Amino acid sequence: MNINKKAIEAHKKLKGKIGILAKVKIKHFIDLSLYYTPGVGAVSSYLAKNKSETRNFTIKNNTVAVVSDGSAVLGLGNIGPEGALPVMEGKAMIFKEFAGIDAFPIVLATQNIDEIVETVKNIAPVFGGINLEDIAAPKCFEVEKRLKEILDIPVMHDDQHGTAIVVLAGIISAFKAVGKNIFNSKIVVVGAGAAGNAITKLLYEYGIRNIFVLDSKGIINRKRKDLNPIRSYERGSRFVSNGVNFANGASGVNKYKRELAEITNKENISGNIVDALIGADAVIGVSAAGAIKPEYILKMNKNPIVFAMANPIPEIMPKEARKAGAFIMATGRSDFPNQINNALVFPGLFRGALDNGVKKITNEMKLRAALKLAGLIKKPNPEKIIPSIFDKRVVKAVAGVIHIFIFFNLL
Amino acid sequence: MNINKKAIEAHKKLKGKIGILAKVKIKHFIDLSLYYTPGVGAVSSYLAKNKSETRNFTIKNNTVAVVSDGSAVLGLGNIGPEGALPVMEGKAMIFKEFAGIDAFPIVLATQNIDEIVETVKNIAPVFGGINLEDIAAPKCFEVEKRLKEILDIPVMHDDQHGTAIVVLAGIISAFKAVGKNIFNSKIVVVGAGAAGNAITKLLYEYGIRNIFVLDSKGIINRKRKDLNPIRSYERGSRFVSNGVNFANGASGVNKYKRELAEITNKENISGNIVDALIGADAVIGVSAAGAIKPEYILKMNKNPIVFAMANPIPEIMPKEARKAGAFIMATGRSDFPNQINNALVFPGLFRGALDNGVKKITNEMKLRAALKLAGLIKKPNPEKIIPSIFDKRVVKAVAGVIHIFIFFNLL
Repeated sequence: MNINKKAIEAHKKLKGKIGILAKVKIKHFIDLSLYYTPGVGAVSSYLAKNKSETRNFTIKNNTVAVVSDGSAVLGLGNIGPEGALPVMEGKAMIFKEFAGIDAFPIVLATQNIDEIVETVKNIAPVFGGINLEDIAAPKCFEVEKRLKEILDIPVMHDDQHGTAIVVLAGIISAFKAVGKNIFNSKIVVVGAGAAGNAITKLLYEYGIRNIFVLDSKGIINRKRKDLNPIRSYERGSRFVSNGVNFANGASGVNKYKRELAEITNKENISGNIVDALIGADAVIGVSAAGAIKPEYILKMNKNPIVFAMANPIPEIMPKEARKAGAFIMATGRSDFPNQINNALVFPGLFRGALDNGVKKITNEMKLRAALKLAGLIKKPNPEKIIPSIFDKRVVKAVAGVIHIFIFFNLL
Repeated sequence: MNINKKAIEAHKKLKGKIGILAKVKIKHFIDLSLYYTPGVGAVSSYLAKNKSETRNFTIKNNTVAVVSDGSAVLGLGNIGPEGALPVMEGKAMIFKEFAGIDAFPIVLATQNIDEIVETVKNIAPVFGGINLEDIAAPKCFEVEKRLKEILDIPVMHDDQHGTAIVVLAGIISAFKAVGKNIFNSKIVVVGAGAAGNAITKLLYEYGIRNIFVLDSKGIINRKRKDLNPIRSYERGSRFVSNGVNFANGASGVNKYKRELAEITNKENISGNIVDALIGADAVIGVSAAGAIKPEYILKMNKNPIVFAMANPIPEIMPKEARKAGAFIMATGRSDFPNQINNALVFPGLFRGALDNGVKKITNEMKLRAALKLAGLIKKPNPEKIIPSIFDKRVVKAVAGVIHIFIFFNLL
């Protein structure tokens, strides 16, 4: 029986991967009068007058919403809230198992930006953090930005930032294993959706200046009419797709891609994935199965680093990549070495944010989390650049980053 | 140490009365590939194509939202979402402990009807039922009505219907104990908020025709200008408050009170609570502390039945009521006999609704639930008209009502 069939049967048997637990048993009237009426009235009155103390008396101190509109679920695309629910339940399960966080899945019956923002804002009083998940680009950028502005609890779109942090950690470690200076390197990001966007920005924040990003129309550059709002009346684009099948959000006028054009591609060249990969030290695929051909890797610099993160089928399979000369090979999958999975990040990041009452997860925190994660592998080698998600040190290390920020007042 | 102090300390210690539990342990990569990626993708794809099967694979089958805008929390009034949260957590705890239901508290950062409806509609895909709670009248009527129209899962405002069902059960049992025919009786409902409204309508549905309802302006009748929309341009009202302090929603033009005027007060009399109670067989207080004076009870018929449901301080204390001649006395409190508490209803009603995939909780179901609950006390007497909320038969009996409806296709 294959994994898909097994998974369907396992889910049908469980009927839900998480549940609610009552922290106290209700056996006598005294339990009710203490935790329900009339006793609870005193707590309610107190919190009505001391709203900022809500965390000290309620589930808000340890509860995160995992919110999705189902518009970009895994590699399955726009499959709606029902299809998204098992994934969000799985995420809630991981939050609990890895970091002791009480996460609750919220899948939405709307895909409209205003309505998503309004809905999350309205339910936010219960939560100590919001994990946005599987929302299509470019909508995800706007939703996250607006929620961060409105809410006083951390809001993080994990497909962007969780992925960016773990990729940066892996890349730092990979360059260490290769023995190259990462700041003199050329890095190519294939895919300009949620993950590609955040990865590029975090690499830039880290100090890497020679980055190229590709979407379905080729290398992102500042000449492209489709990215230039003042010329957006000119229909179409002179850049032809290079035949690569890109994931969600990789086409259309998009101010977020324009932002990428500003921080990448210094020489402002145009071209396809092969043009971009000439002399590159690392390629990071966050697009779709088959986007990286073995012959592309041959164009890269010595000892190339290949991250093929598309799930479940990577841009190139590890065996093929190695055959084409990849020195370091990483994927998002658990059945190959070097699994670059955001489960290495989100449990610890929210653990740290909740424990320290953090209101925003900043770029500085993301950078430090990546460095900390990379630092857990003292001597990286091609078979081991990143810790396992079952490594008990991971959550503590990532959460500790936030604690240090608060402790030293670095915000 | 009094109960309030104890409750505050207990809540501070717990920091949340409920939590999330993971139903499977995540120890190995195989667990992740079965319950998370890649296996979960097969479940997601399946549900995207077979939305109606969501219950069979996800938490939707056993999960209820306990939703409040904090506008009428207990007897504390409009204290907002933070103040409401401990109560909703307590309710979730009771759902779990009494009926094994996974209930999650949602307290809202809005008190606007349209926004409440929109928000609940948007988060509904996760839930198998919606328990509305502590929303002020008359807003609660509109919110519930609209959500029932939009959603295909049961929506119930418990302050209305849970209370109405348990009150009807208690009243049926009380009349049995007194030995009077309930259908020839006169019943007075003091308070025309959420509970008073629903109680009156359910008593009427049951077949009782001699009912009087009072709000802060006196007996509700069809002459009252404030209840007559075609004359609503005439400011003010010629009915003076009788000095009784009523709970939320007991003033202002209100089409829901107009509906009460249509089904009560056949002779269309006006007057105050004393006028209403002359010759009454039962009085049901759902207003506020002190609303029923001992001398009012002296005006009632032989062997009067007094339900004083205001929480935490009843309309009249049991000792005073009995001294004034009350034959049956019930309150909402656990420290007196005959506790009329909706915890006798909501766990079983949602248990039955979830187990049987019911889309609406109908009036017929409510009536049957009340009868079933009353029937659990074979020989009611003044000290025992209703089962204890710790009586193990209760949830099963109430849930069974829904099962019978489905089984016999009575919908």
